Amino acid sequence: MDYKKIDTGDVEYLVTLLGRDRVFTDEEINDDFSHDEMGGISRKPDVLVDVLTTEEVSKIMKYAYDHRIPVVARGSGTGLVGASVPVYGGIMINMSKMNRILELDEENLTLTLEPGVLLMEISEFVEEHDLFYPPDPGEKSATIAGNINTNAGGMRAVKYGVTRDYVRGLEVVLPNGEILEIGGKVVKNSSGYSIKDLICGSEGTLGIVTKAILKLLPLPKKAISLLIPFPSLDMAISTVPEIVKSKAAPTAIEFMQREVILAAEEYLGKKFPDNSSDAYLLLTFDGNNREEIERAYEKVADICLKEGACDVFIVDTDERKDSVWSARGAFLEAVKASTTDMDECDVVVPRNKVAQFIKYTHELQDRFQVRIRSFGHAGDGNLHVYVLKDELSEEAWKKKLSEVFEAMYSKSRELSGLVSGEHGIGFAKKAYMLEQYSQEYVELMKNIKLAFDSRNILNPGKIFQ
Amino acid sequence: MDYKKIDTGDVEYLVTLLGRDRVFTDEEINDDFSHDEMGGISRKPDVLVDVLTTEEVSKIMKYAYDHRIPVVARGSGTGLVGASVPVYGGIMINMSKMNRILELDEENLTLTLEPGVLLMEISEFVEEHDLFYPPDPGEKSATIAGNINTNAGGMRAVKYGVTRDYVRGLEVVLPNGEILEIGGKVVKNSSGYSIKDLICGSEGTLGIVTKAILKLLPLPKKAISLLIPFPSLDMAISTVPEIVKSKAAPTAIEFMQREVILAAEEYLGKKFPDNSSDAYLLLTFDGNNREEIERAYEKVADICLKEGACDVFIVDTDERKDSVWSARGAFLEAVKASTTDMDECDVVVPRNKVAQFIKYTHELQDRFQVRIRSFGHAGDGNLHVYVLKDELSEEAWKKKLSEVFEAMYSKSRELSGLVSGEHGIGFAKKAYMLEQYSQEYVELMKNIKLAFDSRNILNPGKIFQ
Repeated sequence: MDYKKIDTGDVEYLVTLLGRDRVFTDEEINDDFSHDEMGGISRKPDVLVDVLTTEEVSKIMKYAYDHRIPVVARGSGTGLVGASVPVYGGIMINMSKMNRILELDEENLTLTLEPGVLLMEISEFVEEHDLFYPPDPGEKSATIAGNINTNAGGMRAVKYGVTRDYVRGLEVVLPNGEILEIGGKVVKNSSGYSIKDLICGSEGTLGIVTKAILKLLPLPKKAISLLIPFPSLDMAISTVPEIVKSKAAPTAIEFMQREVILAAEEYLGKKFPDNSSDAYLLLTFDGNNREEIERAYEKVADICLKEGACDVFIVDTDERKDSVWSARGAFLEAVKASTTDMDECDVVVPRNKVAQFIKYTHELQDRFQVRIRSFGHAGDGNLHVYVLKDELSEEAWKKKLSEVFEAMYSKSRELSGLVSGEHGIGFAKKAYMLEQYSQEYVELMKNIKLAFDSRNILNPGKIFQ
Repeated sequence: MDYKKIDTGDVEYLVTLLGRDRVFTDEEINDDFSHDEMGGISRKPDVLVDVLTTEEVSKIMKYAYDHRIPVVARGSGTGLVGASVPVYGGIMINMSKMNRILELDEENLTLTLEPGVLLMEISEFVEEHDLFYPPDPGEKSATIAGNINTNAGGMRAVKYGVTRDYVRGLEVVLPNGEILEIGGKVVKNSSGYSIKDLICGSEGTLGIVTKAILKLLPLPKKAISLLIPFPSLDMAISTVPEIVKSKAAPTAIEFMQREVILAAEEYLGKKFPDNSSDAYLLLTFDGNNREEIERAYEKVADICLKEGACDVFIVDTDERKDSVWSARGAFLEAVKASTTDMDECDVVVPRNKVAQFIKYTHELQDRFQVRIRSFGHAGDGNLHVYVLKDELSEEAWKKKLSEVFEAMYSKSRELSGLVSGEHGIGFAKKAYMLEQYSQEYVELMKNIKLAFDSRNILNPGKIFQ
């Protein structure tokens, strides 16, 4: 693509707009800004800027649009598919200093905030007011705008849905610098195309989110988890459709394997309540009183025991909660620390196909002689499968990874699954998405992109191009 | 717009494709197909066809696209804003005979169906299996594709959300005849732009829905309603933000005025449990056991009494349920039957602004000397306000209606509301939406339309053009 190369004139413009201390070039740019959490692709922007207001974002975009300079907006950089990496260079806008919570409206149950507020800050703030922001992705230091742009899901999606379901309104700067107010505090909206829903999950390619209005719920008064050991992962996961059919409506159904638990124990230096079984389901139930929750979990415990579970541990003491959830929160880091490099597959399959998919990854592990670790959201069919490099040479690893991924995504298609459940396509998963969608489907996405960004300057090189 | 006029060659093509008995022209076209439920605008299509398969729809669209013939898809025709009226003539595709329920998947809690299945058929079918499709718009004879295209909400939106939230996957025929499969049975999806969410609420302008995969929930075991009389509507509605703040999470909060209840009593020839008060709130609570529901409604009953309610009636006997819900279901028809003509405003405002808006409609009633009746979803801020023609001349009525609407939509903007909560913009509300959105916003919607329909043949003249 034919973009203007950043020169001193462009940098001067940005300095005039933002001041010298918020514009960075060359060595001033910390290497962190060249990659995301997974690090599969890296490149530094030509210039990095910190912004504090919507108007600043608007002026930068207008300038970039007029001069055809590529722009990438970035939050905490916790993505896993390279969506925030400036593969064409240009300007990177660091949104993470626009991080104020602007308003809690208890009459309308909404929270208005700037894009850089962290997920952990949201839950802390609203729970103090006895309110609840249900989306619960594992990475708590992600920004809310990052979550909106990947339409992150998290563990509670089984019962509560994903980020998109909790976005009521957005302020967005379009690629040409125009500022759009979309939706608002209203609960329903059938007033024209739902641009809000299109922005959610668009991975920073359609507009830059500069404000969000989130929907909140009353905070459930109680939540109790069950940790249920099974003799095999297959047995554990085959139980999930039975749980779904039972209509007990758990908040979360996670699965975990012994190897991952051991890795987390080592990583954290802390014991998990039990590590004697091959596989575990971790279920959470929430509600407003103990009896209601007990009724639900007793039903599910019975189902699990009937399907072959070894035991049922109720995670109700603070100590047990801490050991279970700190381990669950450390899985990604623990797996990462156990190897030299890795890559991840975030497929989503219908819930009753999870067992089949996981079984297939075990076959791949044997066939390709490579370590594969997985954990994830059995309750919503969204798996996080990690292929580990270990002692492979860079070349052998690339080759093997590509073959294993090819096999996994092809299996996912066969099971009516999709490439990404919540991490997005970004740069890393483009080829797999393009294999899945028809030419017309991709053409339509390209047309939508052009409807927003006729000069193709906002986060180019992502999703489908 | 420069469309090809239907000629005998076009009709011949359709007859060859569908057979003589599924193609209608001139007097063979029932007048019903020229308008929707509100009837503000009417025009017959040049040719009406019944379709039975996706392939037929695809072939018709391909033909229409090649020849630049406008096409409108139609379900039950229960819309209220003229969205299904073929204002440019051309082909009307009657989708209502594609009306099979294709699959109930209890392991994934999904229902796959054709576009013409009626809302009442869905609830009946899934409830037999102890499952629940939460969206609950008043018009039960609407088709599911109609509901998807307006993103209908209904009474239970307070707790459960709107139609869009229950659409997991769609099969859509694009304006050029291509068939797209979008989403699926998967619970999460971050694999490219969310075209599904864009189709929902697009009022038949972006594609024709030929199949839908809906998300179901376990059926709550119990639901109980409270009918709460208040001395004034103002007092009733001012109580709603207190209820929302209390976090009791009712399923529905409807408001109704005495005049509307009297009209329903007359229309149905059936008594409402009470008609002695000026205004009522009707609240529903659902859950899995009686105690849980009782706890919630006792809290809300206390709030209402504290805020000045005259009484609290528990709607728990079959007789009382029938009299309350049959009246609620007949409001629209009863108001319609009480006058010579009417038009409707479907604004949505933040929940804590409902009282202010309704108060303003009372002022308008006095100022313009015209009857205005309203009822609607106090719990989600979506109001249905009816302006009645009564004995006004056609000319005086048109003038007055336009002035009253202008005032109402302007008030809604002032309160950060939007033009439509669930009925859409269609043909009738275009001007008011265009007054609200910036030029850039409208431009963006037009660009999105072109991304799907570069020849602008699918349901032209709607929403923004």
